[in-house]
Amino acid sequence: MTDDREQGSTLQPKYDANGLVTAVATDAASGEVLMLAHMNAEALAKTIATGEAWFFSRSRGRLWKKGESSGHVLSVVEMRIDCDQDAIWLRVNVSGDNATCHTGRRSCFYRRIVAAGGTVGLRTEG
Amino acid sequence: MTDDREQGSTLQPKYDANGLVTAVATDAASGEVLMLAHMNAEALAKTIATGEAWFFSRSRGRLWKKGESSGHVLSVVEMRIDCDQDAIWLRVNVSGDNATCHTGRRSCFYRRIVAAGGTVGLRTEG
Repeated sequence: MTDDREQGSTLQPKYDANGLVTAVATDAASGEVLMLAHMNAEALAKTIATGEAWFFSRSRGRLWKKGESSGHVLSVVEMRIDCDQDAIWLRVNVSGDNATCHTGRRSCFYRRIVAAGGTVGLRTEG
Repeated sequence: MTDDREQGSTLQPKYDANGLVTAVATDAASGEVLMLAHMNAEALAKTIATGEAWFFSRSRGRLWKKGESSGHVLSVVEMRIDCDQDAIWLRVNVSGDNATCHTGRRSCFYRRIVAAGGTVGLRTEG
């Protein structure tokens, strides 16, 4: 990890063994975490160039534009990168009916982890 | 990916080949993304049990409690898990002087990706 990578003004993503960095998208207005996905170099370049979020699907092994089938395109308001340049934060506005999750919910993170009486479970929120 | 994993109330994280899920921490008050890290099953269990964030360091190959050396402990206000249960969202309050990044900054995402005149670079914010 170079000092330039941590402190400098040059974009030099630290891709993992699969050529990916992690990307987290939050709602630009509410701050809610909407989804987490991955980008390869091409997805990152296309996101920067177009202002709309592109990712790399690990399960399908291909580049995809978020919303290409659902219409839930993510318009990027701001992109940030973290200290060691292996994670991207996208602040976005969601097109269409404002759902981001493929289940139709606004956010993929619709279940809260709850612990009560020694057992841990999930509770659907909102 | 089972329907129960996506829709049910049972915590059944989908760990990757290295036994990890991704965890993103946001400031419970401002919504700012503070850091992104990874958890193995033990880190997740300790976080749930203690209400403070534990992670697994890929570079050091060991469990670590955030703030164990810096004092910047993350107190968990809420934990959520995403649709396919391979990512965790922690809403936290930060102890100490409220820095989360090892560089002393509040958030690890202190640089904005900016594109101007055909070149892409990073600009330190705030």
